[in-house]
Amino acid sequence: MDMMLNSLMKRATVRKYANKEVPQELLDEMLTAAARTQTMGNLQLYSVVVTRDSEMKQRLAPAHFGQPMVTQAPVVLTICADFNRTTCWCRSRKADPGYDNLLSFLNAASDALLFTQTFCNIAEERGLGICYLGTTVYQPQEIIDILQLPQLVMPVATLTLGWPDEEPQLSDRLPLASFVHHETYRDYTPELIDEFYGYKESLPENKHFVEINHKETLAQVFTDLRYTRRDNEALSQNLLATLRRQGFLQNEG
Amino acid sequence: MDMMLNSLMKRATVRKYANKEVPQELLDEMLTAAARTQTMGNLQLYSVVVTRDSEMKQRLAPAHFGQPMVTQAPVVLTICADFNRTTCWCRSRKADPGYDNLLSFLNAASDALLFTQTFCNIAEERGLGICYLGTTVYQPQEIIDILQLPQLVMPVATLTLGWPDEEPQLSDRLPLASFVHHETYRDYTPELIDEFYGYKESLPENKHFVEINHKETLAQVFTDLRYTRRDNEALSQNLLATLRRQGFLQNEG
Repeated sequence: MDMMLNSLMKRATVRKYANKEVPQELLDEMLTAAARTQTMGNLQLYSVVVTRDSEMKQRLAPAHFGQPMVTQAPVVLTICADFNRTTCWCRSRKADPGYDNLLSFLNAASDALLFTQTFCNIAEERGLGICYLGTTVYQPQEIIDILQLPQLVMPVATLTLGWPDEEPQLSDRLPLASFVHHETYRDYTPELIDEFYGYKESLPENKHFVEINHKETLAQVFTDLRYTRRDNEALSQNLLATLRRQGFLQNEG
Repeated sequence: MDMMLNSLMKRATVRKYANKEVPQELLDEMLTAAARTQTMGNLQLYSVVVTRDSEMKQRLAPAHFGQPMVTQAPVVLTICADFNRTTCWCRSRKADPGYDNLLSFLNAASDALLFTQTFCNIAEERGLGICYLGTTVYQPQEIIDILQLPQLVMPVATLTLGWPDEEPQLSDRLPLASFVHHETYRDYTPELIDEFYGYKESLPENKHFVEINHKETLAQVFTDLRYTRRDNEALSQNLLATLRRQGFLQNEG
């Protein structure tokens, strides 16, 4: 088995970090390598804001619901969809940029996320530990204000990075057949759902999760507590408002 | 240097493929490994549709503006943001899913894109060649119809995959300082733009590109020909309409 596959098959999210620096040289080397990732028209529609300053981490923490990794990790990376740099380039070159729209946001977000994941794969192969914070798109305006992101820049992912101080267990995955379709999409019958989710639901940690939350099923933990309709709808409005403020919805009326 | 970094630093998009199969076993192994990628709440909010049938490739090709890789590659993968499977699971488990909104689309698209990039890194390390088709979000409705994607499933990326039949040159990258910011975002002055884009603009292939298109600057090739305001705005409306049809904008009025 090759090295990358080997490191991948053992990977898990790391939330506790040793009190040991991540040298800037190593970080630069990994960011340079991650930038080999393909992007739209080779425009590299992303930016990375590196946070090392502890006061800045303290300020960012509330936007991530106070998750302790943000202040504990030696490095926090906020990866942004960025059409600002390309737009500045166009304006300096007698070219009229038209990237203040939803498609352009999705193009830049795609570039940013693909870059992010190559970075994760490299860092984990190097023995670093990462926690990917999905909270980035929940309160993006706070992050924008703290990091001073201009229009056409939108944070889409945050990584906390450091040397692992724990060996977390591998988490379960759905079987391949549950997410791979051949030629056309095969929709999910209740029988297939039972087949695909049975293992996840049978795990002691998930049963425990259901129990301590006084729920009947694991799915209810997600719908009633972790990712509720009410939160999702409020956060969607928030996301739309922030995309509009950052200039990505200029032609949506 | 470790293997992954080594393969990354040499990677380039491959558009010509040898007449040689990609065994299903190898594909399954790579998809399984890619699924180690972290996802929101470990829900794996993605699906992959594998196209091997040549008639299906012919049907998909127009949605990708007839790019020859789609019909020439032994395998085409369409990676989708998928909240349908999770929603089916919730409905089978007395749970009320609330994932028909923009935030949920972005969450699922993020999972799908991160998964996609790990897959790319693995496949390229294995010696396979990939072309990432950004066209997926330009005419998503055609792809949805052909692959029979239900509501809450949205294609976000397409990969053509095969054994390379060419050795493409490495493409240029912007310098690290152009996309990495420390503590806060440093906006771009015309002087910085000159510094960061000078190398790209000086490359013979880019000068040639400007010349054959009868433009004054490289940026104009992007704004006037490749990614125009007019196209972006029309495609943004198209994207919004498709997101609405796929059920991801139920509460946006």
